[in-house]
Amino acid sequence: MTTRINVNEKILKENDRIAAEIRSELSQKHILSLNLVSSPGSGKTSLLERTFRDLKDTLPMAVIAGDVQTENDARRLEAAGAVLVRPIVTGGACHLDARMVQLAMAGLDLSNCRVLFVENVGNLVCPSSYDLGEDMKVVLISTTEGDDKPLKYPAMFRRSSVMVINKIDLIGLSDFDLEKVKRNARQINGQLEIIEVSCRTGEGLSRWYDWLRSAVQSKRRKAK
Amino acid sequence: MTTRINVNEKILKENDRIAAEIRSELSQKHILSLNLVSSPGSGKTSLLERTFRDLKDTLPMAVIAGDVQTENDARRLEAAGAVLVRPIVTGGACHLDARMVQLAMAGLDLSNCRVLFVENVGNLVCPSSYDLGEDMKVVLISTTEGDDKPLKYPAMFRRSSVMVINKIDLIGLSDFDLEKVKRNARQINGQLEIIEVSCRTGEGLSRWYDWLRSAVQSKRRKAK
Repeated sequence: MTTRINVNEKILKENDRIAAEIRSELSQKHILSLNLVSSPGSGKTSLLERTFRDLKDTLPMAVIAGDVQTENDARRLEAAGAVLVRPIVTGGACHLDARMVQLAMAGLDLSNCRVLFVENVGNLVCPSSYDLGEDMKVVLISTTEGDDKPLKYPAMFRRSSVMVINKIDLIGLSDFDLEKVKRNARQINGQLEIIEVSCRTGEGLSRWYDWLRSAVQSKRRKAK
Repeated sequence: MTTRINVNEKILKENDRIAAEIRSELSQKHILSLNLVSSPGSGKTSLLERTFRDLKDTLPMAVIAGDVQTENDARRLEAAGAVLVRPIVTGGACHLDARMVQLAMAGLDLSNCRVLFVENVGNLVCPSSYDLGEDMKVVLISTTEGDDKPLKYPAMFRRSSVMVINKIDLIGLSDFDLEKVKRNARQINGQLEIIEVSCRTGEGLSRWYDWLRSAVQSKRRKAK
């Protein structure tokens, strides 16, 4: 088992080196980078679709969309008006790593871009260990997944800056307790920003957009 | 990268050796073993809770409940009448492996047991690579996760024998297409048995119970 740990450490160290390169490049270009993580089906692609439709005329954005298999998400995002889309098909791997992101970035002209979203593989465990050079991780959770998820997958919630609670239109149809999920999340991470939305009805999205614009401005200020 | 692949191969080979020991032990005892896999929040624990409540007087069952953190699921299952429950807290690991299951089995008196459920970590990617000595994998998917999941996480659906579609009471509240998810799943695995249920309303559970009893009988017949 010692061998295994050493190899993993080496992989993570190399990952961190590349992530630092990405972070430096994006900082020089004043681009905010967000790493979107969640269970499969929480609504990462839906949130991006809405965000692109509603903000594309005022905020230039790009996305790198990771999936184990298929380029479905990338195609959905192109249809939603994200002109700058690069798919990554991991071919079985359970997470994105910094090298995959760096390779995908090489195919994107980010010169006029303000935000780069990296849509990770749907997985609440493994992606938490891989720095992708992002400014922040945004973790999504949907109301149909149950309010215990922050306690059961603590690393992901500890390493995220924002928790977006999606599918709030379905509250009341399961025993999901909105206050309880917030308590559980804040028990893991007291600094977590929490935003409640329904990508289906649009409820709450204006708060997400406000947060996003403010993060973009804050990144530009820091860059000066 | 060569090193990494070799180490992983070695780990998987050792895992398969232990899985074969588990399979042999369970076969000698005529115990059906099912490895339950799904995204976080699809309803693995809910399905087991219902199954224990409804069948505990006629079918002796045990469960090994795996989680990254917390023993919440094991506690819920004990409350539902599963007298034989062993929790495994993986402490960050994204899947159960055969050694963890073998250690947990050592703490269970399975002599009168007919079914051993192994509730895996909520993760549609990594658990697909680890044989736990089970007779079959049962993959759960909930209607709120979207109908594209079999195409996006094909390994899990290819290696499963049964797909349980949970939360059918919420159909119509999202753009989930029941026929499409079945088509997508059968495109990946033409042999897949598909059972539709709602653990909340109880709809469809009798079909799951029929399937389970029939699998137990078939296992006993084979053992003779």
